[in-house]
Amino acid sequence: MSKDKKMVREITPQQEDFSRWYIDVIKKADLMDYSPVRGCIVFKPEGFEIWEMMQKELDSKFKETGHRNAYFPLFIPESFFQKEKEHVEGFNPELPWVTEAAGEQLEERLAIRPTSETMIGHMYSKWIQSYRDLPVLINQWANVVRWEKRTLPFLRTSEFLWQEGHTAHETEEEARAETMQMLDIYREFVEDFLSIPVIVGQKTPSEKFAGAIDTFSIEAMMKDGKAVQAGTSHYLGTNFSKAFDIQYLDRDNKQQYAYTTSWGVSTRLIGAMIMVHGDDKGLVVPPKVAPTQVIIIPIGPASKREEVTNKSMELMNGLKQSGVRVRMDTRTDQSPGWKFNEYEMRGVPIRIELGPRDMEKGQVVLVSRISGEKKFVPQDQLNEEVSKMLDEIQKQMYDNAKSFMNSHFNSVETIDEMKAIMEKQRGFVLAGWCGSEVCEHQVKEETGATSRNIPTVVTEHKGKCLVCEEPAKHTVVFGKSY
Amino acid sequence: MSKDKKMVREITPQQEDFSRWYIDVIKKADLMDYSPVRGCIVFKPEGFEIWEMMQKELDSKFKETGHRNAYFPLFIPESFFQKEKEHVEGFNPELPWVTEAAGEQLEERLAIRPTSETMIGHMYSKWIQSYRDLPVLINQWANVVRWEKRTLPFLRTSEFLWQEGHTAHETEEEARAETMQMLDIYREFVEDFLSIPVIVGQKTPSEKFAGAIDTFSIEAMMKDGKAVQAGTSHYLGTNFSKAFDIQYLDRDNKQQYAYTTSWGVSTRLIGAMIMVHGDDKGLVVPPKVAPTQVIIIPIGPASKREEVTNKSMELMNGLKQSGVRVRMDTRTDQSPGWKFNEYEMRGVPIRIELGPRDMEKGQVVLVSRISGEKKFVPQDQLNEEVSKMLDEIQKQMYDNAKSFMNSHFNSVETIDEMKAIMEKQRGFVLAGWCGSEVCEHQVKEETGATSRNIPTVVTEHKGKCLVCEEPAKHTVVFGKSY
Ligand SMILES: [Zn+2]
Ligand SMILES: [Zn+2]
Repeated sequence: MSKDKKMVREITPQQEDFSRWYIDVIKKADLMDYSPVRGCIVFKPEGFEIWEMMQKELDSKFKETGHRNAYFPLFIPESFFQKEKEHVEGFNPELPWVTEAAGEQLEERLAIRPTSETMIGHMYSKWIQSYRDLPVLINQWANVVRWEKRTLPFLRTSEFLWQEGHTAHETEEEARAETMQMLDIYREFVEDFLSIPVIVGQKTPSEKFAGAIDTFSIEAMMKDGKAVQAGTSHYLGTNFSKAFDIQYLDRDNKQQYAYTTSWGVSTRLIGAMIMVHGDDKGLVVPPKVAPTQVIIIPIGPASKREEVTNKSMELMNGLKQSGVRVRMDTRTDQSPGWKFNEYEMRGVPIRIELGPRDMEKGQVVLVSRISGEKKFVPQDQLNEEVSKMLDEIQKQMYDNAKSFMNSHFNSVETIDEMKAIMEKQRGFVLAGWCGSEVCEHQVKEETGATSRNIPTVVTEHKGKCLVCEEPAKHTVVFGKSY
Repeated sequence: MSKDKKMVREITPQQEDFSRWYIDVIKKADLMDYSPVRGCIVFKPEGFEIWEMMQKELDSKFKETGHRNAYFPLFIPESFFQKEKEHVEGFNPELPWVTEAAGEQLEERLAIRPTSETMIGHMYSKWIQSYRDLPVLINQWANVVRWEKRTLPFLRTSEFLWQEGHTAHETEEEARAETMQMLDIYREFVEDFLSIPVIVGQKTPSEKFAGAIDTFSIEAMMKDGKAVQAGTSHYLGTNFSKAFDIQYLDRDNKQQYAYTTSWGVSTRLIGAMIMVHGDDKGLVVPPKVAPTQVIIIPIGPASKREEVTNKSMELMNGLKQSGVRVRMDTRTDQSPGWKFNEYEMRGVPIRIELGPRDMEKGQVVLVSRISGEKKFVPQDQLNEEVSKMLDEIQKQMYDNAKSFMNSHFNSVETIDEMKAIMEKQRGFVLAGWCGSEVCEHQVKEETGATSRNIPTVVTEHKGKCLVCEEPAKHTVVFGKSY
């Protein structure tokens, strides 16, 4: 499509219609396209490169903590799903089935994996014989499919990309430590790398992973006050070990079931990043994850172009050498103003302008995507100033998102209070809960909010259930969720 | 499984049964396992890490030449395959079909992608409107499925991993240049990185990609004399543009069909690498692709262990800092001899031994996996010596493979000569070919060999067809293939 046409199309303001704003932005910034297959999107290069940045960072964190990558089959025999009762109930409604191949009916239907606990459980039962084989610490980067009724690009698509870690351990203690370690890696990654503050906590039984003993999550707040579950880590106990017979001979020569975990984050993080940081000008991408951190735009009349372009090139190479991901836009068929808008829309953290007057003064102009502030910087201090500004932007984005979350975080005593909040500004709501599914269900019915998690750290402990007023067993964060 | 049991199991000698040798080695080196789904393997960490090394290198070569990664859906609507006649004929027999999802019959069956020309063609027709949108240079790393009847781990599996590049251009000239550029990137990668010499050339019409105008390949020779097609690059002309309506407004404001290409290499490269370099001791992995390039094994009595281990650690850190992928084996429940065998079996290029006597002399012992030669090296020259030895091994492996290929490369005048060769030592055979499919078919029937490609560079031009004795149109390389 011609770029001109795209650029003049307006972005719906967030206040007017957040959902339309989101779709406008991801289309305009060229992150994705709809595919002819229902609920499946195409990750275009501008969008996929953000995922590549995330992958690189996460992959190194996984490897640092002793995990290794592997790859397991896409297809899962139907009988595998039957082996873990909760698991089959949780996933059966969303499975696509291969029933024919190479012109013949298959004897057993094959599901396209929605997650790989069953296949990996089957393999681990072959690989794990002795305590000496433990722990097994494996991760897989893969596509998975869940046939969703309502889809939304990045946040909920029928096919999506993710990583799934699957580990097996000698003891419950070790497996629980692994579960929490990976949850903390996710928290650190999402907070430090994506500048998204999260609520860390445990899912209620009705919201946990189908087949898990305990599910832990990190929950992020979008700018429309809705929640996105940004990552989950599951302690599976011996549920899958028993279903798939993952037994090992322990140090006392006795057969034991291994304790397993699984944990994952997906391409929905792209959607969360956009909805947490974006504004009416378009995307805002945190420096650490931005495929392009700095765009250099030479300006001024044609007569000076060569000189300005040469200097820009020199500065670009200097930045590259100091490890900055920088590009230069030398197109002559677009005005500087047009380019400014374009890179703001694409969310590039820093724009550098360089014109003949800057050349005379030996300076460049740095413009921050989040503050719009201009900073005049001596050319020979460019590398340090850029590095400093990238750090500042990264931090400022986190602080802004944190302020937003704090100002949309309420504490209530009754379901009526929560209802009023959910009808207005939404956001997260802290409330007491007795532990009964009936009360949890009633909250959902009446307010549209679901329990996000039981936070690990709360400043306030609630005494009573917001529904039945019985003593609260947990203090829970509720919110409407994507 | 217990490591002890694995280590005592013998590897079948190559001369006795090459196929059994191959399976023994990949199982023993823990590269893969069979899965419960027919023809689908599990890539275990030891195998997957080799693929990760290949990915990293190729990905950077693709990006250097201006390509960007993206991701397209796994599912392809049945109607898409119908649009390109040769394509549907080529791939239909191998497709698995999703017919049900989320409890309902689908209106249109969905194929699991065997390759993505059709899906990507459909998307490109939306994205490409003007010559300003060209070229489009996109690559995808993905899983693909072809329901194979006969499978062999890595070399031919129902599901495999690969990259597929898909580009669109204004002119035939540009598209052809892209086709050849990517072929050359493959050649360079396979020769320099995997130390595998290849024959570069064009496929005959009967062996080309279904839907291509021209297919080019690089062909490698395994140690049993059989061929592996190690990479292909296709010039697709306007075949897919016409089928999917990829039209653009050219510089003269006229509608034109874009010229497209596609190119790919897959996890079969892992199999090729093993079959080219492996020996009766096990794997031999070229240094550039080896996840572990150097293994340090401290030796000597328990009383000296701490001292030796500390020094080993120091040397390891020095090597790491100079960019070497090095590990240390400090297990106390295995003898040094056992460890030597184990890392030879796993194909680690260099072993470093360090014992108390070496400590006294301020030296270490370097042992090359390919020559078995021991080299005594002063500890303070370790980094340079290791770096030199890795380069030498990389080069020596290429030279050895090249000698093997040369000594198994014959030139014949008649089909009877070829038959005699194929019954004995196999290898590649150069012969004249009139260009008729009948003659090509007869070669296959009588000798079991198929045309590998028409080499770009030949030292000898054949005058007559080996079958019909008519004037030769091409000089062709034949071989039995995996
Ligand atoms: Zn209650
Ligand atoms: Zn002939």
